[in-house]
Amino acid sequence: MMLINGVETDQITAIDRGLQYGDGLFETIAVVDGEPEFWQQHLQRLQQGGERLALSIPDAVLLQQESEQLIAAADANIHRWVLKITVTRGSGGRGYRYSEAQTPTRILSLSPWPYSEQQQSEAVTQGVMLHICNTRLGENPTLAGIKHLNRLEQVLARNEWSDPAIAEGVVMNPQGEMVEGTMSNLFFVQNGELVTPELRLCGVVGVMRQQIIEQLQQQGVTVAIRPIPLQQLILTEEAFCCNSLIGIWPIHKIGGISFHAPGPITKDCIQRLKRGS
Amino acid sequence: MMLINGVETDQITAIDRGLQYGDGLFETIAVVDGEPEFWQQHLQRLQQGGERLALSIPDAVLLQQESEQLIAAADANIHRWVLKITVTRGSGGRGYRYSEAQTPTRILSLSPWPYSEQQQSEAVTQGVMLHICNTRLGENPTLAGIKHLNRLEQVLARNEWSDPAIAEGVVMNPQGEMVEGTMSNLFFVQNGELVTPELRLCGVVGVMRQQIIEQLQQQGVTVAIRPIPLQQLILTEEAFCCNSLIGIWPIHKIGGISFHAPGPITKDCIQRLKRGS
Repeated sequence: MMLINGVETDQITAIDRGLQYGDGLFETIAVVDGEPEFWQQHLQRLQQGGERLALSIPDAVLLQQESEQLIAAADANIHRWVLKITVTRGSGGRGYRYSEAQTPTRILSLSPWPYSEQQQSEAVTQGVMLHICNTRLGENPTLAGIKHLNRLEQVLARNEWSDPAIAEGVVMNPQGEMVEGTMSNLFFVQNGELVTPELRLCGVVGVMRQQIIEQLQQQGVTVAIRPIPLQQLILTEEAFCCNSLIGIWPIHKIGGISFHAPGPITKDCIQRLKRGS
Repeated sequence: MMLINGVETDQITAIDRGLQYGDGLFETIAVVDGEPEFWQQHLQRLQQGGERLALSIPDAVLLQQESEQLIAAADANIHRWVLKITVTRGSGGRGYRYSEAQTPTRILSLSPWPYSEQQQSEAVTQGVMLHICNTRLGENPTLAGIKHLNRLEQVLARNEWSDPAIAEGVVMNPQGEMVEGTMSNLFFVQNGELVTPELRLCGVVGVMRQQIIEQLQQQGVTVAIRPIPLQQLILTEEAFCCNSLIGIWPIHKIGGISFHAPGPITKDCIQRLKRGS
């Protein structure tokens, strides 16, 4: 089910700048038992993206009302849904130039949860395997961190493998430093310290990544943020990936390198995140 | 007027991967007196883009038929139109992963020519002024050269200025080398030699750029292709930008640096291109 500018439809004009140029932003939000998780945090990131792109984000109350409308219409017997909010710059402007006056397009949709209970519980208890992607992320400080609609690098990276035993791929920057997964953020344990890649020049600042950093900080555990070259995998004791849908997935293998999964610090993070939320 | 998969409509499903991820390609083609210019070259670039993205391009005969249908329906008293062909990966797949079996979406539209006769003739006789953009282009060898739908960098760069006296902006790579304009390719004359930026890691290989290089080569004039740092503007005698709509526009100023426009070599290029086409 989908609402476009408040109207129940999935049809949009092809001159929308979201299609023409990827001129827009999106959020993917877990809805559990009728409640969108980390709503404020998702809206805040959308707002930050809007500031970077000079794109005015629709009113939060309106987005909330429309989200509630979608959730109310969904089958209440189904425990989990995925809410996607897309905001584009709308149609208009001349070529790449947009007009200050144009009205953004908002697209809200509710979709089935993409993972079975079994997939999810196996991932958490046994860990997942990651491919090392050849596709690298281009660097652009203005676009780094935000969740914009230019996602061809992720499409290319994700389609490097089709083996269903591989859950995710590690994507690097041009310098060979690990940045993120194709659809998740990465954390590593090195010398007992929790580390996550710096995202100043590329990558998406995931809502779950921020939650983990903040929850741990509140509980007195510091997460180091720094560039992490691929070679450092051999110095790594544990690894996990995270996003708003999967939560935390321990990693048992990246390329040819194996890890104890779930390791003690990963387990601890999963527990702390549960307590914090 | 617009045809989407052969149907006269401007409506498309919002789950199309063109909108969701910018997963697609486009061509902007000048139509003069009912004839698309450089048709084969545009189709060839579309095909090259398709190979890079593993996206199957609709049959050339079909694209030609639909283009002719649009042109036949347009006002024949109007001399010039812009034909845009967009091909997306269609809808489907799961997240960033596409399915091998999915059907691409083709969108063909015919739009009014964006420049008045006066604008065009003033640009050619007096030259244009270019802004030096702060927005840099991220580097990705797989995406470099092709005309894909991830154009946020161009949107950001183009919206750095609103002064109508500025016709175009120079965009650099992270190393500070000039790559292209926001909507055009760049050529420079240095020590009497014609030079255009290398586009191995970012930028679009424009159809007009290729035409100029090939026409000149056939006439015994070599164009050097190499990285061109911004500082080399002070060693530059002439400059021009080009694309499929504007043809060649001499440049009289980039940032604070002025050039003789149109200079003798630029004039010569304009003449040679006329003879060759």
